[in-house]
Amino acid sequence: MTSRRIAFTKGHGTGNDFVLLSDPRDELVVTPHAVRVVCDRRFGVGGDGLIRVVPDGDEWFMDYHNADGSIGEMCGNGARVFALFLRSEGLVAQADFVIGTRGGRREVSVGEQISVDMGVPRVVGDEVEVTVAGTRWPAQAVFMPNPHAVVFVDDLDLELSDAPLVRSEVFPDGQNVEFVSVVEPGRHVRMRVHERGVGETLSCGTGICAVADRVLASAGVSGEAAVRVDVPGGSLTVTRTAGGSLVLTGPAVLVADGTLSEDLSGMFL
Amino acid sequence: MTSRRIAFTKGHGTGNDFVLLSDPRDELVVTPHAVRVVCDRRFGVGGDGLIRVVPDGDEWFMDYHNADGSIGEMCGNGARVFALFLRSEGLVAQADFVIGTRGGRREVSVGEQISVDMGVPRVVGDEVEVTVAGTRWPAQAVFMPNPHAVVFVDDLDLELSDAPLVRSEVFPDGQNVEFVSVVEPGRHVRMRVHERGVGETLSCGTGICAVADRVLASAGVSGEAAVRVDVPGGSLTVTRTAGGSLVLTGPAVLVADGTLSEDLSGMFL
Repeated sequence: MTSRRIAFTKGHGTGNDFVLLSDPRDELVVTPHAVRVVCDRRFGVGGDGLIRVVPDGDEWFMDYHNADGSIGEMCGNGARVFALFLRSEGLVAQADFVIGTRGGRREVSVGEQISVDMGVPRVVGDEVEVTVAGTRWPAQAVFMPNPHAVVFVDDLDLELSDAPLVRSEVFPDGQNVEFVSVVEPGRHVRMRVHERGVGETLSCGTGICAVADRVLASAGVSGEAAVRVDVPGGSLTVTRTAGGSLVLTGPAVLVADGTLSEDLSGMFL
Repeated sequence: MTSRRIAFTKGHGTGNDFVLLSDPRDELVVTPHAVRVVCDRRFGVGGDGLIRVVPDGDEWFMDYHNADGSIGEMCGNGARVFALFLRSEGLVAQADFVIGTRGGRREVSVGEQISVDMGVPRVVGDEVEVTVAGTRWPAQAVFMPNPHAVVFVDDLDLELSDAPLVRSEVFPDGQNVEFVSVVEPGRHVRMRVHERGVGETLSCGTGICAVADRVLASAGVSGEAAVRVDVPGGSLTVTRTAGGSLVLTGPAVLVADGTLSEDLSGMFL
C-alpha cells in the first residue's frame, strides 16, 4: 500500500455537490468502484458526482463521473463548480475561458456568479404526457442533449417521491421531468426536477436550460433573452445568446479541501 | 472576515458518519446553525453529527452535536470515531484511555477495532407494542440511557420508511425502534433500526447495545458474554463485562481530512 494521499476539494452549485480530484499529471485511475466509494455520503466524502481535473493541452478537461460510477457527458452545475475550482487554484488566469467536457468544449465565465454555455436545445414536437398521483399534464420534450420532459403546472406542491409516469415515443431510455410554475411569464419561474435514476434533486443544470427554453417559447419571446429559474437549491439565470445557445449562470461554492485517507487514495493509484 | 480556516476530519463507524473539528485551545463557538450547515450533505461537508474535539484537563472531551443542531448526550459510534481520531492524531499515547462525554466519562480502546464502554442498560418491565404496516409485535423497553423499543421478528424484510407505531407508557418523548432477527440464539443477530426523528439508519450504537442486552436475556445468558450484531452499515460486537456494562466494539474509519472554506470556518470564530 502506498502512503501517497490524494488531494480533493468539495464544492456545490445550487446544491448539486461534487468531489474534485486534481490530477495535473493525468495519472489517476478512476474506476466505477472508486467513484461509488468516494461519493458515498456515509462511507466516503459524499457527492452527486466526482470530477477529475486533468490538463488537455492548454485547457483543462472535466472528467465527470456520476455518483453511481457511470460516465456523465456533461453536468451544468458540475461545470460551474469545475470552472470556479480552476480559477481558485490559479490553474487558469483569465475570468473567461474554455473547458473540455465529454459533451465538447464549453465557454465558462467566473465572477461573482459562474456561467457555462450549455449549447442549443433541441425540441422534439412529439406528444408527451406526464402523470403524478393520478393527475395528467401534457409535456414538451427537450434534449439538452440529455432528455427532458417539461411540464407547466399551477402548483408545485406535488408528491415526487416516486418517478412520474411519462408516456411518449421519444424517451426510449427514460428522461428527467421538470415541473414549472410561472412567476412572471417569459422571465421568472420556479421549478422542481425528478432526475432519471436518481429521484428529486435540488438542482439540475440541463433541466433548468430545458425549462428556460420552453418558458421563452410559451411567452413568444425570440432572440436574446434571460429567464430566472428558482430551484430548491437556489436561483439561476439562463441567458439565450444571439446564436441560440443557452448560458447557465448561478452561484458555485467550494466548501472544503483536504486529502483522502490512504485507503481511499489507494483506489486511484 | 477572518482568513483563518478550520481543520476537519471526516470519519465513520459502521456507516454513522461525523465531522470532527479539532479545538485544542477550546476557542471554537459551535452554534446549531453552524452544525446544520457543516453537516448538510450537499451544502456542507455532510455527516450525522459534528464532534468538537476539546481538551478537558488530561483528557479529551467529545462535544457532540446532532446534524439538526441539537445537543447529543452520547453517541456510541461517534465515541469510537472520536477515540480513533485522538489516537491517529497522536493526541493520546496509550491504546486504552478515558474520554469525556455529556453522558459521563467512558473507557475506550483503540486497536484493529475500536471499543467504547456504553454503560449498564436499564430495562423497564412495561408492555410495549410495535406496529409496522398492520403487523403487531410485543416489544421490550430498554434505556441506554436513551429510549429503545426492541422487537424480535422472524423476517427483517420490513417497510421502515415510515416510523413504526409504538404503544407504551414509558416513551413519552418517543423512542428508537430496533427489529431483531436471531441468527444464533444468545450469540449472533441481525438488526435494523429506526431512529427517533431521523428514520432508518445504517447503525446505532445505543440501539445495538439495547438489542444485545435483550438477546442475552432471551437466551438465558447471565454474566460475562458477547453478542455479534449485524447492522446494515457493518458488524459489531457487544461484550458484557462482569460489572454488567456493555462494551461496543467494531470498526471505525477516518475517510478524509482538510480545512473548511473561509465562509464555513467563519461560522465558528
